[in-house]
Amino acid sequence: MRIVVALGGNALIGPDGSATPEDQTDAVRAAAPALAGLAAEQELVVTHGNGPQVGNLLVKNEIAATVVPPVPLDWCGAQTQGTLGTLLLDALDEELARRGIRRRVAAVVTRTLVDPDDPGFRTPTKPIGRYLPLAEAQPLLEHGQTWVDHGSRGWRRVVASPEPLEVLDAPAAAALLAAGFVVVAAGGGGVPTVRSDADGHRALAGVQAVIDKDLTAVVLAQALAADLLVIATDVDNAMVDWGTPHARPLEEVSVAELRRHAADGQFGAGGMGPKVEAVCRYVERTGRRAAITSLRRISEAAAGTRGTRVHP
Amino acid sequence: MRIVVALGGNALIGPDGSATPEDQTDAVRAAAPALAGLAAEQELVVTHGNGPQVGNLLVKNEIAATVVPPVPLDWCGAQTQGTLGTLLLDALDEELARRGIRRRVAAVVTRTLVDPDDPGFRTPTKPIGRYLPLAEAQPLLEHGQTWVDHGSRGWRRVVASPEPLEVLDAPAAAALLAAGFVVVAAGGGGVPTVRSDADGHRALAGVQAVIDKDLTAVVLAQALAADLLVIATDVDNAMVDWGTPHARPLEEVSVAELRRHAADGQFGAGGMGPKVEAVCRYVERTGRRAAITSLRRISEAAAGTRGTRVHP
Repeated sequence: MRIVVALGGNALIGPDGSATPEDQTDAVRAAAPALAGLAAEQELVVTHGNGPQVGNLLVKNEIAATVVPPVPLDWCGAQTQGTLGTLLLDALDEELARRGIRRRVAAVVTRTLVDPDDPGFRTPTKPIGRYLPLAEAQPLLEHGQTWVDHGSRGWRRVVASPEPLEVLDAPAAAALLAAGFVVVAAGGGGVPTVRSDADGHRALAGVQAVIDKDLTAVVLAQALAADLLVIATDVDNAMVDWGTPHARPLEEVSVAELRRHAADGQFGAGGMGPKVEAVCRYVERTGRRAAITSLRRISEAAAGTRGTRVHP
Repeated sequence: MRIVVALGGNALIGPDGSATPEDQTDAVRAAAPALAGLAAEQELVVTHGNGPQVGNLLVKNEIAATVVPPVPLDWCGAQTQGTLGTLLLDALDEELARRGIRRRVAAVVTRTLVDPDDPGFRTPTKPIGRYLPLAEAQPLLEHGQTWVDHGSRGWRRVVASPEPLEVLDAPAAAALLAAGFVVVAAGGGGVPTVRSDADGHRALAGVQAVIDKDLTAVVLAQALAADLLVIATDVDNAMVDWGTPHARPLEEVSVAELRRHAADGQFGAGGMGPKVEAVCRYVERTGRRAAITSLRRISEAAAGTRGTRVHP
């Protein structure tokens, strides 16, 4: 079975939310046993978020902006593919070796194509990073960033969050899978990239945006014809009627039923909602299966015994 | 023919030495035609330096150290694999498409194994980054970095520059080559990594060091059984008797003759010397060929008509 697992960026930081290098290293090591357990029996692709990591890089950009030219947001994402990719390579190589599993791991730098006409680029709405006083935001405004005035709280940057259209480097992931590798790909949703066929001299270029890593995981899993897409989060199941006496975890569920729960407003816009949207898309587009569960339950989700398992 | 080309980090910045994102993007685009021309006819692996890019990241680390924990030097290298990898992917994809060459490009996050007992780790000697007053170096000293007092010039960081022993992710590069990809690998000499078999819980880990990218290119080319290793630099040939009336470019040359010139002190320790050392090593270790030339001459070097071509 071919499985794509999407790890949340928050799974890759410390329990207190801190994202020092040590926190990130420890968090990746904590995630490795569940992933290696799955890799023992299945073809595995790991994708991951990078929100807290990009947050740190943005702060450095801001603080150093008058001395070192800030790098664009897409570069920050590419940087985290390097660092989290390296951590995942080390931790998975080690964990596979410890279990006597003779599989190699590879991490590919991954770009995700987005539409330059995506509405997000005309009206960026996705807030990222810290609130800053105008004096500190000014050099970044001058570097072309969009910041919004939040009055007494200060200014905060907003960016586009466009739809992922195609994972440009999915063929590399596919070739590595075919060669027997466990593959790390599309970190942070992939480096946002636009294609402008009109201008032969700039046909492909990175673009400043944030792509939802779970939605990119859907597109990646489609390209790889994955049998199962698992959105790994911090709970074993999506819940309905949360906070009422009727609260219950969703186990095996049809995509139609899951869509009804979503339409009923069962899932929060910031948390479970986007994950539910991702698994629904995958099942609807492919007729294959998807799941939402915790990292520790991913092998059971693959076996169909635990987690919120979504079928056509 | 299978060819590994090593691009200098200085080839990936602006002509004035500046390394803004725009400079790096333009420099990579300027390098793409020569590389794509080679990829039209040969199996191609591109590796690259990252010195100026890491320099920028170190400055950000320093300036922001009291607010955001600085990341280790090996992370800076991994970050540049993401950013330069993305730029090379875009530029090569574009240039191949423009020429109607139906080949894909892939960039792999690459670690290079070094010996934790390498003398460099006991006595770091490789200076990197800026001179800082003690007050600014202090927070970095407290983060475990080694800095040396240069008196009135200030303090400067020193790190180990260990020998590359093995490119841990060469098998991923090999699998992608076999699948027909042009491969970008081992950027910045690879992320320096140590293996400690004694401690099962930390068997693989990044380590703060700078690996010579040309020496890593040798090890990578060995692992990939490359027919030719090309060290791309800013001159068409290595020269002997430079600065005298007898100055002449080296064209076809045996490794024995090249070693004699090196022993005669013909090549500078900071510039051509390490490149000559790299090509000599490759020819001696493998019995295959290597060359030193400019980017614009790499196809002719592969054809055996231009550049300094070294044979056994």
